[in-house]
Amino acid sequence: MRKSAEEAQRTRDRIIGAAVTQASGQGLTGLTIGSLAEALDMSKAGVVGPFGSRAGLQRAALTRAVEMFTQAVVVPARAEDPGLPRLTAVVDAWCGYLAHGPFPHGCFVTAVSCELDGQPGELRDLIRDAVARWRRFLREEVTAAQAAGDIAAHRDADDLVSILAGIAMAANQEIQLLGDGTAAARAGRLMHAALDAARPAARQAAPRG
Amino acid sequence: MRKSAEEAQRTRDRIIGAAVTQASGQGLTGLTIGSLAEALDMSKAGVVGPFGSRAGLQRAALTRAVEMFTQAVVVPARAEDPGLPRLTAVVDAWCGYLAHGPFPHGCFVTAVSCELDGQPGELRDLIRDAVARWRRFLREEVTAAQAAGDIAAHRDADDLVSILAGIAMAANQEIQLLGDGTAAARAGRLMHAALDAARPAARQAAPRG
Repeated sequence: MRKSAEEAQRTRDRIIGAAVTQASGQGLTGLTIGSLAEALDMSKAGVVGPFGSRAGLQRAALTRAVEMFTQAVVVPARAEDPGLPRLTAVVDAWCGYLAHGPFPHGCFVTAVSCELDGQPGELRDLIRDAVARWRRFLREEVTAAQAAGDIAAHRDADDLVSILAGIAMAANQEIQLLGDGTAAARAGRLMHAALDAARPAARQAAPRG
Repeated sequence: MRKSAEEAQRTRDRIIGAAVTQASGQGLTGLTIGSLAEALDMSKAGVVGPFGSRAGLQRAALTRAVEMFTQAVVVPARAEDPGLPRLTAVVDAWCGYLAHGPFPHGCFVTAVSCELDGQPGELRDLIRDAVARWRRFLREEVTAAQAAGDIAAHRDADDLVSILAGIAMAANQEIQLLGDGTAAARAGRLMHAALDAARPAARQAAPRG
């Protein structure tokens, strides 16, 4: 009994992994059970079964992709002190994720955000909540850095979050669409410069000009 | 004869317009001839006919969407002098486009870039070339502004282009996915600040701090 529950879990994991890989290239709404079944050497019913429906599998794949992003970018940074040390760790992990992430076709979260923003429903709510949660995390770290005097108090935290998110999205396009091999390094440089420009004048790394 | 050619052109235009609207929400690969035919009250064969194939219609829709972006953002700015005046006009038109653009579901170019970056083929080549052309235009204006002494000569033009593109992409996500009504105004403020921060020290609008 124990054994078969573990086996069911392993099968479920394998299906989700294949769905994430396929959706990374073709989009979540483009997920086809037929080609997943072929790739996994399973029946279509066997692929869908553990999730109740194609929609259930799409939800599971999206939830997994968000977990993979969190594991790659948020979890390592949580080992650092809140505020600027953690933000700096986030930036480094984020750019590593953009360059050598777990998805074959770049940031799954960005791709699904673009794909689903005009399609009301449960999947759109899922990705909206995940993106909102991620931005709230960044915002809290900016606020903590302000409390510690590492970022100027008059800076708008949402502005800085927007800038960091934007640099990552531009780099994702440069890497995935334009094939620019220098983009991840540029993103790291620009993110660190954005954090530095937001420091109180007395703590900035170098003069501007 | 003349008349029927005009009528064929009008029909073609109507189909492309409906395809752009549908693809803005559901993606270009999600374009379905059946629902287009229904929306247009035409036969499926009548919808596809003028384009030879579904792929031909997808190409026409993507080409049209790129033209709409160019009309909204590039054409008005071309009336200004090259360099900083033109960049400033681009930023204003771009943020207007993000807030009240011609597509029901936000920036079509960004959406299609995310959708197709992992799908090799003619459509991906089309959007890659359009994005590369757009970034080259921005880069040339930055270089012209440097030649005129309006942007510091030591600034990396590609860095500034990445920052501007990123701010637009983040704002598009904030507007379309997160429903943030303040995002377009923030994007305008951040883009102008990015241009200002790149000016030679003597020409900056305000001290930093």
